[in-house]
Amino acid sequence: MNMKYIIAVDLGGTITKVGLLRNGELVDYVKMPSRQDLDMTASLPEIENAIDFLLNSNGVKRLFGVGIAFPGLVNNKKSIIISTNEKYDDGVELDLDRWADEHWGAPFYIDNDARLAAIGEWQYGSGRGYDSVVMMTIGTGIGSGVIMNGEVMYGKHFQAGSLGGHFVVDYKGRLCSCGNKGCVEALSSSFFLHKIIKDHACLSPSFKMSSQNYDFKEIFQLAEQGNRDALLVRNECIEIWGAAVINFIHAYDPEVVILGGGIMNSHKVIVPYIEERVSKFAWTPSAKVSVVVSSLGDYAALYGLEYCLRKKIKDEVFGKSSVSCPLKPSDSAPLC
Amino acid sequence: MNMKYIIAVDLGGTITKVGLLRNGELVDYVKMPSRQDLDMTASLPEIENAIDFLLNSNGVKRLFGVGIAFPGLVNNKKSIIISTNEKYDDGVELDLDRWADEHWGAPFYIDNDARLAAIGEWQYGSGRGYDSVVMMTIGTGIGSGVIMNGEVMYGKHFQAGSLGGHFVVDYKGRLCSCGNKGCVEALSSSFFLHKIIKDHACLSPSFKMSSQNYDFKEIFQLAEQGNRDALLVRNECIEIWGAAVINFIHAYDPEVVILGGGIMNSHKVIVPYIEERVSKFAWTPSAKVSVVVSSLGDYAALYGLEYCLRKKIKDEVFGKSSVSCPLKPSDSAPLC
Repeated sequence: MNMKYIIAVDLGGTITKVGLLRNGELVDYVKMPSRQDLDMTASLPEIENAIDFLLNSNGVKRLFGVGIAFPGLVNNKKSIIISTNEKYDDGVELDLDRWADEHWGAPFYIDNDARLAAIGEWQYGSGRGYDSVVMMTIGTGIGSGVIMNGEVMYGKHFQAGSLGGHFVVDYKGRLCSCGNKGCVEALSSSFFLHKIIKDHACLSPSFKMSSQNYDFKEIFQLAEQGNRDALLVRNECIEIWGAAVINFIHAYDPEVVILGGGIMNSHKVIVPYIEERVSKFAWTPSAKVSVVVSSLGDYAALYGLEYCLRKKIKDEVFGKSSVSCPLKPSDSAPLC
Repeated sequence: MNMKYIIAVDLGGTITKVGLLRNGELVDYVKMPSRQDLDMTASLPEIENAIDFLLNSNGVKRLFGVGIAFPGLVNNKKSIIISTNEKYDDGVELDLDRWADEHWGAPFYIDNDARLAAIGEWQYGSGRGYDSVVMMTIGTGIGSGVIMNGEVMYGKHFQAGSLGGHFVVDYKGRLCSCGNKGCVEALSSSFFLHKIIKDHACLSPSFKMSSQNYDFKEIFQLAEQGNRDALLVRNECIEIWGAAVINFIHAYDPEVVILGGGIMNSHKVIVPYIEERVSKFAWTPSAKVSVVVSSLGDYAALYGLEYCLRKKIKDEVFGKSSVSCPLKPSDSAPLC
């Protein structure tokens, strides 16, 4: 029974992950540096190669579906990339449905990466048991995904819930690559880290000089060792992430906010700070909003793709009103 | 046929409006200064008096329903005020269902004032014909309401969509009365105007000295006459409202953003500035988002209450699945 395998590709700004999943389980994966020098068309052959490698080495002859988690705005109904943000800008021109069909004869699904991570956590990770979930993913960029009252939020033009990284938290702040001013992403993402260091008013000249050399991992390590400059940068970014979380709570009224992305290796520093800020500043009289760490880590979006692909295929084959099809990994019966 | 009359009360921070409506039409109303020295319990007798005056002077013997638009968080299903913000703080203890029943034997409905204004505009005003609408109301406080894909947004704890005035747009900014820091409301509402003037780094000492004397109407008039201080205050507030509108667009993905509140008498200055900011900074590749002025003006929330009361009564009498009941003023048939 190979029919239930799916391939999920998370096309990150720094790392591309290709996963082989079956029935809510990540069976095998490849993790490779994204080719930041290439556009999307030129990146696809490497991805095809990784997919074929996974299929061959796991003896998979037929795919149930192929999905891509994309760092931009996506129309998931038409499988079209709507808009990018200085990454894979040629994506809007591609016919990816056809790409998947021609290569593997498989149905295709694409959505925003942070939205898919939220879906993954909601179905299989830290968001299980909740019906109102916000996830913020702090990576190269900063993304968000929202589930409200058991429904994934898309909005009129597929933007709602996924542009949290582009909420203004400093209306006089830095220009973002999205075109807006003072976005969470422009003030506190890896993509902007060297600018954050270079523009900072209170850092030492020597630290600023080497702004290109640092990533968040080093900033957190140096801060841990008491480096004054790194502490300033770290604490300011955490404060901005905290302001973002408060905005998500005020905007979407969730039961839980899940924090994800590579930076969450430092969750022991980040989460208590944000929890404190939320309990002090968020207006939540009805119930305390939990702030938790992603439990699927870097793979949340892959799980989200698995869920969405299975749901898409179920809806197409059985119609949207069918409710008897198992969609969770705990359901051991074969899918539909 | 008196059965279709409803009373709608908009309990503003500065002005309280009591309207008599029938079938989507505002038949008569009373507009009186809110008693800022009183709590809600002590304010109710004046409201009762205004309601009875309207009923008597219009010969109305029986009410179809009574509603209140409240400037705080409300559970509209249970008719309970959940949380206030330095206005009518005793509201959370009141049994308003009983209040309406004892006085007029009428069903009762209560919801957040800005959400109701959004509903009013969506059904009867500038939002007609759209199914994804955000409204921002700039008054004593700053509120918001959201309709997404034809559904009014409530969220898990009735907060979603209505806390736009408490989005952080300056994470290092002023403490708000809601407990949060750098909210839109704390930086650009009437409630905070004297603090905005007093704290401003670039205003003349004489202007600051008389901070208590100004309201937005005077600020806009003085700015129009070229007063440097007033121009600074006015332009900074418009810039903050613009940042708020961008956040609403990024959060909720609407087709249209409606601006309301008393300040919209100056819409000829405000709207072009915000439109320009939106077209420059908002990430909206799929469609231009319109920025328009409320067409129901100060009465939007009253119309929203009329719609919600009629919908509540219809749902209770005929069940939620009934779809044949006319709900719009253009439908001339009697309700249900």
